[in-house]
Amino acid sequence: MTKKIAVLAVNPVNGAGLFQYLELFFENNISYKTFAVAETTQIKTNSGVPLQTDDVVANLKGNENAYDALVFACGNAMPTFSENAGHSENQDLLAVIKAFGDKGKLLIGHCVGGLLFDIAGIAEGKRLALHPFIQSAVKSAVGTDEAFVIDGNFYTAQTETTIHLLLPELLKVLK
Amino acid sequence: MTKKIAVLAVNPVNGAGLFQYLELFFENNISYKTFAVAETTQIKTNSGVPLQTDDVVANLKGNENAYDALVFACGNAMPTFSENAGHSENQDLLAVIKAFGDKGKLLIGHCVGGLLFDIAGIAEGKRLALHPFIQSAVKSAVGTDEAFVIDGNFYTAQTETTIHLLLPELLKVLK
Repeated sequence: MTKKIAVLAVNPVNGAGLFQYLELFFENNISYKTFAVAETTQIKTNSGVPLQTDDVVANLKGNENAYDALVFACGNAMPTFSENAGHSENQDLLAVIKAFGDKGKLLIGHCVGGLLFDIAGIAEGKRLALHPFIQSAVKSAVGTDEAFVIDGNFYTAQTETTIHLLLPELLKVLK
Repeated sequence: MTKKIAVLAVNPVNGAGLFQYLELFFENNISYKTFAVAETTQIKTNSGVPLQTDDVVANLKGNENAYDALVFACGNAMPTFSENAGHSENQDLLAVIKAFGDKGKLLIGHCVGGLLFDIAGIAEGKRLALHPFIQSAVKSAVGTDEAFVIDGNFYTAQTETTIHLLLPELLKVLK
């Protein structure tokens, strides 16, 4: 039986990253639902294209048991994450990541994703692929310079340009 | 001076393909405008995500001179293209491709894109990367099994999974 995936998309989101996951899931009949890390389902890509997610992260919080894996799709919302960390959607984002981690579910992401897994306190000692600019920022995880890393239930790619290397490995555990 | 790009998106469109082009252009300050091959700007990705383009292909027709290059973003609209070829958006699509070709502008695309360049009659003798299923369908062009091909003003990738190999070459001519 294939797994059911919750996909988080920040606003703005890198469309190349987001849709590499989504089209792979679609083509392999893997069930997924998209959640905007925003107050509404209307978000934009980095490149400025308006798109609509299925739901918002506030409605994923508390319903994590309905999903087997979490994807974090990174984007240009992240450089200002620390100054916006108090916003409810970002608090919900960290709470959802923590819930998936505490339940031992699959955590998947690229770019800043690994740093959020670290901030949520679920990746102690885990090796994570991270954007070169933020490798030194992780506290309890181990940031690496590899294109992608699999460590236990953590599947991370360094940036959206290396996701294609991670995808075949994802298929093995998601189908 | 960077070039101005017209990006065609069929409905439904493969989001992984479309956004690899768009995010690259965005990150490199390359100007672009998106056009739906549809009657409205509201289209969907193969994966079912609603998104909005800047305009529709009918409004690109006759205005090709405003752009230096054309990108064709393929998608699940294409398997039924032959039965829908008479629809005005598909007639406009071929007219626009022909106009860009006749003016010697850059033609960029993946998957079925090369076949459309062939159908439009602008790629005689040109080598084009094509999805394996349709290599035998081209008439006056030469369909190849390569991951990507550059031949004169034609830049083609075999599928959305090989676009990342074409992108560095695109940057050289678009920046």
